[in-house]
Amino acid sequence: MGNSFGRLFRVTTFGESHGPAVGVTIDGCPPRLPLDIADVQRELDRRRPGQSTLVSPRREEDRVEILSGVLDGVTLGTPIAMLVRNTDARGKDYGEVAQAYRPSHADFTYQAKYGIRAVAGGGRASARETVGRVAAGAVARAVLAPLGVTIVAWVDEVADVAAAVDGATVTVDDVERTPVRCPDSAAAAAMIARIEAAKKDGDSLGGVIRAVARGVPAGLGEPVFDRLDADLAKAMVSLPAVKGFECGSGFAGARLTGSAHNDPFVPAPGRATKIGTTTNHSGGVQGGISNGEDVTLRIAFKPTATIMRPQQTVNVAGEPTTLTPRGRHDACVLPRAVPIVEAMFALVLADHWLRWRGQCGAP
Amino acid sequence: MGNSFGRLFRVTTFGESHGPAVGVTIDGCPPRLPLDIADVQRELDRRRPGQSTLVSPRREEDRVEILSGVLDGVTLGTPIAMLVRNTDARGKDYGEVAQAYRPSHADFTYQAKYGIRAVAGGGRASARETVGRVAAGAVARAVLAPLGVTIVAWVDEVADVAAAVDGATVTVDDVERTPVRCPDSAAAAAMIARIEAAKKDGDSLGGVIRAVARGVPAGLGEPVFDRLDADLAKAMVSLPAVKGFECGSGFAGARLTGSAHNDPFVPAPGRATKIGTTTNHSGGVQGGISNGEDVTLRIAFKPTATIMRPQQTVNVAGEPTTLTPRGRHDACVLPRAVPIVEAMFALVLADHWLRWRGQCGAP
Amino acid sequence: MGNSFGRLFRVTTFGESHGPAVGVTIDGCPPRLPLDIADVQRELDRRRPGQSTLVSPRREEDRVEILSGVLDGVTLGTPIAMLVRNTDARGKDYGEVAQAYRPSHADFTYQAKYGIRAVAGGGRASARETVGRVAAGAVARAVLAPLGVTIVAWVDEVADVAAAVDGATVTVDDVERTPVRCPDSAAAAAMIARIEAAKKDGDSLGGVIRAVARGVPAGLGEPVFDRLDADLAKAMVSLPAVKGFECGSGFAGARLTGSAHNDPFVPAPGRATKIGTTTNHSGGVQGGISNGEDVTLRIAFKPTATIMRPQQTVNVAGEPTTLTPRGRHDACVLPRAVPIVEAMFALVLADHWLRWRGQCGAP
Amino acid sequence: MGNSFGRLFRVTTFGESHGPAVGVTIDGCPPRLPLDIADVQRELDRRRPGQSTLVSPRREEDRVEILSGVLDGVTLGTPIAMLVRNTDARGKDYGEVAQAYRPSHADFTYQAKYGIRAVAGGGRASARETVGRVAAGAVARAVLAPLGVTIVAWVDEVADVAAAVDGATVTVDDVERTPVRCPDSAAAAAMIARIEAAKKDGDSLGGVIRAVARGVPAGLGEPVFDRLDADLAKAMVSLPAVKGFECGSGFAGARLTGSAHNDPFVPAPGRATKIGTTTNHSGGVQGGISNGEDVTLRIAFKPTATIMRPQQTVNVAGEPTTLTPRGRHDACVLPRAVPIVEAMFALVLADHWLRWRGQCGAP
Repeated sequence: MGNSFGRLFRVTTFGESHGPAVGVTIDGCPPRLPLDIADVQRELDRRRPGQSTLVSPRREEDRVEILSGVLDGVTLGTPIAMLVRNTDARGKDYGEVAQAYRPSHADFTYQAKYGIRAVAGGGRASARETVGRVAAGAVARAVLAPLGVTIVAWVDEVADVAAAVDGATVTVDDVERTPVRCPDSAAAAAMIARIEAAKKDGDSLGGVIRAVARGVPAGLGEPVFDRLDADLAKAMVSLPAVKGFECGSGFAGARLTGSAHNDPFVPAPGRATKIGTTTNHSGGVQGGISNGEDVTLRIAFKPTATIMRPQQTVNVAGEPTTLTPRGRHDACVLPRAVPIVEAMFALVLADHWLRWRGQCGAP
Repeated sequence: MGNSFGRLFRVTTFGESHGPAVGVTIDGCPPRLPLDIADVQRELDRRRPGQSTLVSPRREEDRVEILSGVLDGVTLGTPIAMLVRNTDARGKDYGEVAQAYRPSHADFTYQAKYGIRAVAGGGRASARETVGRVAAGAVARAVLAPLGVTIVAWVDEVADVAAAVDGATVTVDDVERTPVRCPDSAAAAAMIARIEAAKKDGDSLGGVIRAVARGVPAGLGEPVFDRLDADLAKAMVSLPAVKGFECGSGFAGARLTGSAHNDPFVPAPGRATKIGTTTNHSGGVQGGISNGEDVTLRIAFKPTATIMRPQQTVNVAGEPTTLTPRGRHDACVLPRAVPIVEAMFALVLADHWLRWRGQCGAP
Repeated sequence: MGNSFGRLFRVTTFGESHGPAVGVTIDGCPPRLPLDIADVQRELDRRRPGQSTLVSPRREEDRVEILSGVLDGVTLGTPIAMLVRNTDARGKDYGEVAQAYRPSHADFTYQAKYGIRAVAGGGRASARETVGRVAAGAVARAVLAPLGVTIVAWVDEVADVAAAVDGATVTVDDVERTPVRCPDSAAAAAMIARIEAAKKDGDSLGGVIRAVARGVPAGLGEPVFDRLDADLAKAMVSLPAVKGFECGSGFAGARLTGSAHNDPFVPAPGRATKIGTTTNHSGGVQGGISNGEDVTLRIAFKPTATIMRPQQTVNVAGEPTTLTPRGRHDACVLPRAVPIVEAMFALVLADHWLRWRGQCGAP
Repeated sequence: MGNSFGRLFRVTTFGESHGPAVGVTIDGCPPRLPLDIADVQRELDRRRPGQSTLVSPRREEDRVEILSGVLDGVTLGTPIAMLVRNTDARGKDYGEVAQAYRPSHADFTYQAKYGIRAVAGGGRASARETVGRVAAGAVARAVLAPLGVTIVAWVDEVADVAAAVDGATVTVDDVERTPVRCPDSAAAAAMIARIEAAKKDGDSLGGVIRAVARGVPAGLGEPVFDRLDADLAKAMVSLPAVKGFECGSGFAGARLTGSAHNDPFVPAPGRATKIGTTTNHSGGVQGGISNGEDVTLRIAFKPTATIMRPQQTVNVAGEPTTLTPRGRHDACVLPRAVPIVEAMFALVLADHWLRWRGQCGAP
C-alpha cells in the first residue's frame, strides 16, 4: 500500500531497483494538454546517475516510454502510464547484503514489515523508485504551465557549506550551471570540494535543498488536514533520506515574536487578488491555503547511508557482524535530488489546482 | 475537502469556531475496544483554553458527547461520532475583522479560496477545529494500548529558551508538572517568564514541541508515499501555526557524515525482532518503516498571529488600513498544542497499525 | 469502515438506530450555494415513519440541526455536519432479539464480523441510518440545481402490481399524490390494497422503484471503474433490502438484438451538445458517461425481513429456536424508500459533476 | 479519474486499445504469496479474442509480463505491475469512426467529456481495458486461495435461451466444456446456434452471466456504503455492456412475500460459525455482510453495440449520416466475459478480506 499520491491528479509508482522496470501511472490528468515526451525525458536525465563525477556511476539510459494516455503529443484524459526499463542491474554485487542488514538502510525494516525483501539494489527501497515520480512531475508541470506556475529547487547546503542566494530570483539556468546544482558559484565550488573529499574518505554527506514555486494562484490548499503545506511536507518527507521540512520561516520562525513574524498585507496591483504581503515568513501559505506569494520550502537530507567503510551491524539471524564496503555509492545525493524535489512540488500543486477547480471552480 | 485523515482509521472533523458545534467522526475503529468517555474528556481538558494564565481565557467547558459507535464503554466497529458544543461564541468581537484581513491569519486565503468566510472566531480556520482531532486521538490511543505504545510530547523550546531533557525518559507526569508543559523545570520557569513578558508587551511567541512514541512495533509504515515519517509530517504540518518538522536527526543530521549518522544494528534480546540500534538518528523510521526504536519528532510553531498591537493590513476592498487589537489571545499556543501533537501522533500510528494488519497480518 | 461515499462531494454517515443520534458530515460541498434547512427537513419528512397507515408507526419528529458549514443560508465550502436526535428508542422491545438471530436481518452477520452488535433497533443496520443519506441528498440537490438537473423516483411495482406510466413525464407531484408514491392511481390503489392485506396477514411485500434524472449534462462519469452507472449501482445496492439494479434496458435489454437495442443518434438542436438519441435503451449512460438523455434506473427491493409471524431460527449459541413476532413493522418499505433513492441519485450526480469540473472544467 | 478499484487491494488499469500496451498495477497485495505467472496467463487466455468462431477474430497473443512486485514466484508486498503489449492494432479500419459516432458506443460520450478521443479501436472504451482486470483477478485469487474461496461464472442466458443448472454445483470444468461457457450442454448448443445465426445476420446478442463464490467466510463487507453486494454491483456494472445486476433473489425476490423470502437460520456444524440458512434468497449477503452461504450474482449484458448493418447516426458536426459496417465484431461477448466477471468477483472479495483483517483481525 501507499504507492499512490494525490487525490485528483493521482500517481501510482511501481518497480524494484533490479527488477524488469520502474514506472508510474497517472490517473486524473486533464485532457487536451500538450505533452512532449522530450520534456519527460529531460527531467529523467536530470535525476539520472552518472551525470558527473559527483554522483553514482551507475549508467543507465533511463529511456522513458509512454504506454497510454497521450496521442499525437496531447493528453487524452485517460491514465498516462510511463515505463523505464532497468538495464544495469548487477545482481552479483549484493550477496553480502542478503545476509546482513545495512545500517540506516531499509533492509531490516522491509524484512520486519513484509517478511521478505528484494535484496538486489535495495529493491523497492532504492531511490530508483523516484524515476516514476520525476516522470509524473513532468506531466504535472504541463498541468501547471497554463497557470504560469514555475518551480525551481537548488542545493542550499552541503554539510557545513551554505549558499548565499536570493531565493526570489534564482532560475533553473542558475541552478544547472554547476554539477552540484547550487546557484552560488563560490558555495558550489566549496560543496564540490567537500563531496570529493568525503568520497575519497569513503564517507558521505547530507544537506539542504531549497525550493520555490512562483506564480501559484491564491486559494490552493485545503484548510484542515490537506493543507497545501501539509501535503508538501508529506511529499518531501516521502523522499528517501529526508529528515526535515520547513515552509516559510520554519524552525527559525519559531524564535521570532509575532510582531516580527506577521506578514503585513498591502495592495498589490499586479496580483490577481490585488493583495500581497511585504514579507513572506508564511512561505506563501496561510491557514493551509496559498496567498499568491512565492511558496518557499527547505528540505533536509541526511548523509547517504551507503559508505565505503566497514560498519558494525547484525546478520539476518540477529548476530553481530561487520559489513565490508563494496560497489558504488553517491557520496552526496543532493544534486540528483533537485529534480525529484521539483517533481514532488509540481505533483502537489497540480493536484490542489484540480481540487480547487472541482470544489470552487467556475460552473 | 481535505477534512478527513487516515486510510483505515479515518477521522473527519467538522465545525466552525463560533458555529453550533465542533466534532469528529471516526470510521474504521476496531470493535470490542474498551473506551471510556472520561479518557476522551481528559484529553480535551488538556487542550482547553483557560487552564492557566498562560493561555487564552476563553472558558468553554468543552464537554464531549459520544453520539454513536460505542455501547456500554466498548467500541462497536461502527462510526464513532463525537460532539462538543460551542458555548462561548462572542460574535460581537469580530466586527472589524469582517472588514480587514488579519496579518498571517487565514482570513484572506479563505476569502481567496471560497469567496466567503465565517468571520466570527476565524470560523473553520480557528484552532478550535482541533477539538475533533484531540477527541479522535483519545480513541486512537485505545487502539494502540494493547500494543503497548505510549506517546508523550512536551514544549522543548519557547523563543530562545530550550529545555535540556533526555527524550528517552520523559513521562507525561513530567510534562504536566508545569503549566507550560516543559519537563525541565528551570527551562519551564524561563519560558513562563518569556510568555508573560510577551503578553504584557502585546506580543506573542513561538517554539518547538518534541514528541516521542515508545513501543512502536517494527514494520509500521509504507515504503513509498505513505512512509510513516511522511504521514507524521503531514499530520503535524496540518496543525495551525506549524512551520517545520523533523524526524530523528532532522536539520542537524544534514550536517553529519554518513559514518557518524548511520545507526549501527546490534542484537536486542528484549525486542520482538531481537534487533536494535545503538544510536537513533533515524528517529525510529528507516525507509519509511518503523524499526522498533523510539519514533522521535520535533515540530516548529510560529508565534501566534494574533497580537495586541496595531498592525498594517488591507481591508476587503484591498485598501490599506490599520487593525486595532482587541479581544483575547494566546501569547504562546505551545502548551495547549502538546495534547494536539500527541493526538495526531496517535492517529498516524493507529492507522498504520491497521494498515499493517490488513496487508501483512496473520490470516 | 465503508461509511463514506463519494470522492469530491463526500458524505460520511454515523449513528445507531437507538443510540443518541444519527447524522452525516459532507466534505467537499462547493461554497456560496443557497441552502435552506427547510429543504433538508422536507426530504427527511418524506422518509419519516408514520406518514400514513402504510408504513411503520414509529413517530419521531426527526428534526435536523445543521451544526456547521452553513452560515445565513449559504454554504461555506467547509464540512456540513447535520444531526438528528433519536427520540423514540424503545429499548424494551428488543430483549428476544438479543438472544436469537432474526432471519434475513443483519443480526448474525454483524455478530460474525464485529463480534459485538448494538441489538436495540438493529443498531447501525437499521434503515434509520438513511436519515443521514437523505439529509446529504438535499444538499446534493442544491449543488445540482444550477445545472437544471431534476430527479424523481416512484414506486413502480409492489409484489405483482405494476404501474403503467411514462417515465419521461412523471413529476414529484404525481408521485406525492398517493401515500404509496405511485403516480399511476389505479396501480396505487391496488398496491395499497396489497400492502394492507399483507399487513393484516403479518407478512411483508417487496417491489421495484424507478428513478429518472433529467437535465444531466453529457460528459459525467468516468470510463472504467467509476462509471456513472457503476457508481449508481453501488449507491442503490448499498440501500437496505435492495437485491437488484438496472440502468436503461436492464435485464430485458439482454434479450434484444443489437439492431433493436442500439440508440440511433440524431441532431437535437435544444441540447447543449446538439446531439440526442431517438431511443434510450442506454438509460442515458454510454461507456459509463452520461450522454444528455434521461438517466433511468430500476431498483428491486426484497420484502421487509421483519414479519409478524413466528419464524424458525437459531439463538446466539447456535441452537434452533422460534422467534415470536412483536413490535412494529413496515409491511412494505418502498413508499419511504422513494426519497432515499432520490437522495442517493443526487449524491452520485453531484459528485460526478464536481469530478468532471476538477479534471475537465474551464480554467 | 476512476481507473482504480479497491481500498486495500487496489488495482489501477491503463491503456488504450490501439496504443502501445494495456496493463495494471496492484497496490496492497499481501507479501509471501505464491504467484505463478502461468496462472495469470491462463486467465488472460480465457478472455482472449479468437478462441473460437463465436468470438472476435482479433488474434493477439496477449502475453503478460510481470514488471514488479514478484520475485522467484512469490509476492513481495510491493506494487505488482503487469503489462500486455498491443500487437494487432489495425489503425486503418477506423477512418469512418473518426467522423461519425457509433450508436450505443462511447465515441460520443468520450468526446462530450474530454473534448478528445483515441479513435482507433475505441481507445480506452474498448473491452481491451479488461485485460488489466483479468490479470489482477488472477492475483486476487492467489490472495483468496488460502481461505478456500472459489469462484465460478457461466453464461446463463443468451437472448431467449436459458440454461437449467444447479448453481450450487457448477464447476469451472463444466463451464469450459463448451465454447459458449454454458454448463448446460443442451442450452449451450442452442446458444451457439443463436449466436451463429445472429452473426450471419450481421446482428448481435446479449444475455446473462451467473456467478457464484463458495467458501466465503462470514463477516466480509461493510454495513453501509461499502456493502459487499454494493461493491459487487459496482464491480459488475463497471464492465462494458452491463445493464443489470442481481444478488441472490434479485428482481424475482421483489415479488415474494417476506415469509417466503426470509432465509431461516439453522445449525450448520461444518461451518466456521456453526450457523447456516436453509434457503439463500439473500445470495450470501445480509446487511451488506457475507453470512457464509454461497455469494450468488446475475449480471445482464446488452447485445454488442457493434453490428454489421448500416446504422443511422450523426457525424462529429452533428449532421445525420449512415454508418456502414466494417471490420470485426463479437456477435455475443458473453463467453469472453465469463473470466472477466470472475476476476471482478475476486477483486472485491480479496479487498474485503484485507479490509476485514485490518479492522477486525487478530492482533
